[in-house]
Amino acid sequence: MKRFLFGSLVLLFVLYAFLPATGSQVKKENSCMECHEIVTPGIVNDFKNSKHYLRASISCTDCHCKREGPDTFFHEGHRVNLVVTPRDCGRCHKKEEKEYELNMMSHAYGNLILNPIYLDLAKNVNLLSETGLTMEDSCLSCHGTKIEVKGKEKRETPLGQIEFPKIEGWPNTGVGRINPDGSQGSCSACHPRHSFSVSVARRPDSCSRCHKGPDVPAYKIYSVSKHGIIYASHGKKWNFEAKPWILGKDYNAPTCATCHISEVRTDTELIAERTHSVSTRLPRKLFGIPYATNHPKSPKTYEVRNRMGLPLLSELSGEPRSEYLIDEKEYKDREAKMRSICLSCHSSSFAEKHFLRLNESVRTSNEITRRATQLLLSSYKEGIAKMDDGLFNETIEKMWVETWLFYSNSIRLSSAMGGADYGVFDGGRWNLGLTLERMKEYRDLLFLLTQKKKTVK
Amino acid sequence: MKRFLFGSLVLLFVLYAFLPATGSQVKKENSCMECHEIVTPGIVNDFKNSKHYLRASISCTDCHCKREGPDTFFHEGHRVNLVVTPRDCGRCHKKEEKEYELNMMSHAYGNLILNPIYLDLAKNVNLLSETGLTMEDSCLSCHGTKIEVKGKEKRETPLGQIEFPKIEGWPNTGVGRINPDGSQGSCSACHPRHSFSVSVARRPDSCSRCHKGPDVPAYKIYSVSKHGIIYASHGKKWNFEAKPWILGKDYNAPTCATCHISEVRTDTELIAERTHSVSTRLPRKLFGIPYATNHPKSPKTYEVRNRMGLPLLSELSGEPRSEYLIDEKEYKDREAKMRSICLSCHSSSFAEKHFLRLNESVRTSNEITRRATQLLLSSYKEGIAKMDDGLFNETIEKMWVETWLFYSNSIRLSSAMGGADYGVFDGGRWNLGLTLERMKEYRDLLFLLTQKKKTVK
Amino acid sequence: MKRFLFGSLVLLFVLYAFLPATGSQVKKENSCMECHEIVTPGIVNDFKNSKHYLRASISCTDCHCKREGPDTFFHEGHRVNLVVTPRDCGRCHKKEEKEYELNMMSHAYGNLILNPIYLDLAKNVNLLSETGLTMEDSCLSCHGTKIEVKGKEKRETPLGQIEFPKIEGWPNTGVGRINPDGSQGSCSACHPRHSFSVSVARRPDSCSRCHKGPDVPAYKIYSVSKHGIIYASHGKKWNFEAKPWILGKDYNAPTCATCHISEVRTDTELIAERTHSVSTRLPRKLFGIPYATNHPKSPKTYEVRNRMGLPLLSELSGEPRSEYLIDEKEYKDREAKMRSICLSCHSSSFAEKHFLRLNESVRTSNEITRRATQLLLSSYKEGIAKMDDGLFNETIEKMWVETWLFYSNSIRLSSAMGGADYGVFDGGRWNLGLTLERMKEYRDLLFLLTQKKKTVK
Repeated sequence: MKRFLFGSLVLLFVLYAFLPATGSQVKKENSCMECHEIVTPGIVNDFKNSKHYLRASISCTDCHCKREGPDTFFHEGHRVNLVVTPRDCGRCHKKEEKEYELNMMSHAYGNLILNPIYLDLAKNVNLLSETGLTMEDSCLSCHGTKIEVKGKEKRETPLGQIEFPKIEGWPNTGVGRINPDGSQGSCSACHPRHSFSVSVARRPDSCSRCHKGPDVPAYKIYSVSKHGIIYASHGKKWNFEAKPWILGKDYNAPTCATCHISEVRTDTELIAERTHSVSTRLPRKLFGIPYATNHPKSPKTYEVRNRMGLPLLSELSGEPRSEYLIDEKEYKDREAKMRSICLSCHSSSFAEKHFLRLNESVRTSNEITRRATQLLLSSYKEGIAKMDDGLFNETIEKMWVETWLFYSNSIRLSSAMGGADYGVFDGGRWNLGLTLERMKEYRDLLFLLTQKKKTVK
Repeated sequence: MKRFLFGSLVLLFVLYAFLPATGSQVKKENSCMECHEIVTPGIVNDFKNSKHYLRASISCTDCHCKREGPDTFFHEGHRVNLVVTPRDCGRCHKKEEKEYELNMMSHAYGNLILNPIYLDLAKNVNLLSETGLTMEDSCLSCHGTKIEVKGKEKRETPLGQIEFPKIEGWPNTGVGRINPDGSQGSCSACHPRHSFSVSVARRPDSCSRCHKGPDVPAYKIYSVSKHGIIYASHGKKWNFEAKPWILGKDYNAPTCATCHISEVRTDTELIAERTHSVSTRLPRKLFGIPYATNHPKSPKTYEVRNRMGLPLLSELSGEPRSEYLIDEKEYKDREAKMRSICLSCHSSSFAEKHFLRLNESVRTSNEITRRATQLLLSSYKEGIAKMDDGLFNETIEKMWVETWLFYSNSIRLSSAMGGADYGVFDGGRWNLGLTLERMKEYRDLLFLLTQKKKTVK
Repeated sequence: MKRFLFGSLVLLFVLYAFLPATGSQVKKENSCMECHEIVTPGIVNDFKNSKHYLRASISCTDCHCKREGPDTFFHEGHRVNLVVTPRDCGRCHKKEEKEYELNMMSHAYGNLILNPIYLDLAKNVNLLSETGLTMEDSCLSCHGTKIEVKGKEKRETPLGQIEFPKIEGWPNTGVGRINPDGSQGSCSACHPRHSFSVSVARRPDSCSRCHKGPDVPAYKIYSVSKHGIIYASHGKKWNFEAKPWILGKDYNAPTCATCHISEVRTDTELIAERTHSVSTRLPRKLFGIPYATNHPKSPKTYEVRNRMGLPLLSELSGEPRSEYLIDEKEYKDREAKMRSICLSCHSSSFAEKHFLRLNESVRTSNEITRRATQLLLSSYKEGIAKMDDGLFNETIEKMWVETWLFYSNSIRLSSAMGGADYGVFDGGRWNLGLTLERMKEYRDLLFLLTQKKKTVK
């Protein structure tokens, strides 16, 4: 029987090579699509309009039925995986799979959950909700969940009761999702299924899902930048499907993808190679926890330790933990790479000053963060705040968090992308200064309250 | 003379039936349009591009001259109503009129103004501005004003002095506007006049007018959801005018209207019927004041009373006031209806977990609201805050308001629509936790200030 | 040699007049474009798609090589200015240049830097960063920098080392930029280079760069207004390039430009003339520092002084400093001009009430600002806050700033443009009331802290 099946498959494959793509496709997929056109018509429709289907003759089974793992189940005569992973995609997109593994984003789960400090912050954010459900709905929605198969369960469907694997952490499209096959991430984070469109991923809107909050207001900053304004004005005429994607022909101002991921090229010249490992163009980690530093060497930031033993890329004094960070040569190479993209449209004097201003924003925002940190540390010393129960559960600690997580990060991202007000009144320097001031007075107040309590009790 | 006029009208009507639509239209409307093309060209132009005009041969008089009421005035030989009401629209759109009457939105005026607690909040928001003008400009801008005719007045116009009715509360397009004919609401809230476009109403932007603030950040949440990202990327190619509006053909991801109002259908299957009574698909009232509960049975929420006699859907302890709320059967029916829409594009495991996460968000946000409420109540008991002058005029009360009105609601809406950060750092759990913490310390401070004042005085 | 060059140029000029535009263009620009197509392809591409190039046969040298100034340098045989100024643009666009000189925006640099109070605010916002770099990156990013040439420097380029002028304050596209030729502003603030598109400038997105923050949330307000919703829904079908730009034909709802700058006309009627001096349509300066007043007569607001000698348009009591402000006749003329634009699409009763509501918002927000100011002044008197070290460095002062800079301004802009929630919960009346309340309690706290410090020390 197995030989017969194998023989048939070989035959089908040979026949397939001689059949016109779309015609053959309809046949090949009938088994899945016959039902799914009824039960999940939206999925089927997206897929049928995708390049995968229309140009590459990819079938449902190519992505859903090619590996065996804990999430595999038998369904209408097929061995099916619900979860399609970067490794599944990598069967055709090897280069992208490999690059993405080096991308810090693919480690977003571990970088949160395995870093005791960040995990403590996550728990404090989620309050009484350390249950998986809340974590899945909040932090892990972007960072990615851990997908774990816990047995099977029967569910009512329009076609009667069907047995499915019971999957914890599902559904999720977080960039660092831990998959049942051990791979990390979810390609549909940026290429939403089942169209897996490059067009969506190249648009700034795609990034807004996780990069719009007060901690990383990149999308908001882009929107008010000249780049974003040109996109909003003329982007609807651009060709986001083109391959290659040619600057000056297909689009006229960069989107997030242009500078951070895409191949950048004109009609005649290659300016930057496409990479799914965004850090190869990033000299710095502007997103400081609590300080901005040179970019770390490894994407696994949870592995670092500063001299106090804390899993941070710098000392609490702001001194960078250099052994974990790229050196000056690599820093300059990466900045040069990014600068070469600026230079496609801007003069060298423009780019020169741009980076000088960004440097100054990094320096000054780090310095204010240092002052806020000093204030917190002295509050610990004076006994009006407590360090041993964590860094995130008292008001003065939360104020400290806002100085770096929200305001310093916003200031730096705003400098990096020309976002004006997000570095000033809208979560920027105004808010940073106000919060620092309030921390000082709050300390006085705490002192008073502490004294008073003693008297009263 | 009257007989002659009547005879002419009958004759015109008969002729009209035999004339090609657009040609006859120009004649019929000449009397209104001749002037209004000069004095309000924008209105006339919008109308001339509307389906009403182009396809249905509706005339100005069909909407503006068909009923007599306090807002009727005589103008250039016509009996005219300035205000066009849902009842006016209902002459052709009966089903929509009837459905909308059952929609909680059509009661938005009474639900604010006739609920003494909400009215007190509104007054405290508007400070010294309890005048009609400020209420019209703030809360009632969305909730709807009470339209009242107070005599006549002459106004200078480009065509000389003309007498108009003096109408209080006008202009307004609030969803619960109280109209002179006793009807409630304004169809142009979502179908802006004079194009009355279904295209505008089907787009999420239409809802942003009233559903973007910190209390109901639905539009912001949608924007960063996968649905919103696909809309932002590809929505410009969708057909928002199509009737029927077919999923997978005319559009590929839901807008607000899709899930909440529109007919949902594929080429072959009807998934949900269109309804202007959105609550038929809503199992819960996620927008909690202060607690989220099952959806109320009646759209008139101002009629409810809890055991303390307060016009709220729950006790201050969070216990729902079940007699006013839909029962578990109806709850399940409505959830199933909504879930069937999810299932058009998502697997049953996807939808299953989605609702589990939402349930958990409701549970935890209600629980934190309960703690905040307890803190406030104990402050009343301790005499450091006063309940008898209302619930909204002291700082600790305003902090309490923010815990539920802003943060708990944002968390729940974010869970319901996949909005990630609006449940975390951007008005979500972070802000809820911080505010709860601040309420505690503020209580200590109040205690201190109260003591001190006694000593000083 | 000079004679030969001059002769050649004359010859070229004569020849040019007889050559077909685009053909000749390619030749004429070869000298610049040959290199710049390689080194800055984005610029060249934008320019080649611009009306300047395609229809008006403008060349690089027409803008970059027509005047001598401190920023002139010799580059590949040309005398080149890096900075193109409104005066450069004015060689062809004289009317726009003259109008813009009267626009308050062209004085945005001086109005910030030469006003000691605003400069003090700017310094307090920017904290330890009074360096030029931070100012360039924050306030001056929108207000405009002072461009100053400080010698020359050599820079590495893809074509080898080249000498450029060293220009401080560059790059910048702020509306009030001080240029080396003494002119003020940057046309590319709204017409981004090198396409200089009228289409971008006519879209609301263009204004978002500087008018989206909490101090001037005009863009956010527009977005949720009916106007903005119609733009979001149907704007992609409008013709933003048309000249003339005809209401009802090219667009159906106003953008920012429509009401504030553009020619407003229908097919048959001119409603308002185009002006680059926006104040000719503005009766009021709604953006109050700290109070909203009638519009100032002069665009140079730094020249005013109130009775206390402060450079403000009103007394601290709110009383307007009438001698610097337009009189009631001018006020009415400007309001009538603006109202005539409303009347293109709205009835006179609509417009009438609109302005009444706006008036009420101005009155009430000014009144709350007055109360906040009284609170601050009495804190100075009581010695719990200090005036002589400036108005912006203590928490109670910063709270005061937020009452007018953020909340009162947001309320007024929201009334002016139909923005609902930005006048209520999203930086509006709710926030104003809460901050006023907090100022009161903060004063009590300050009093307590002051007392305590005395005892402790």
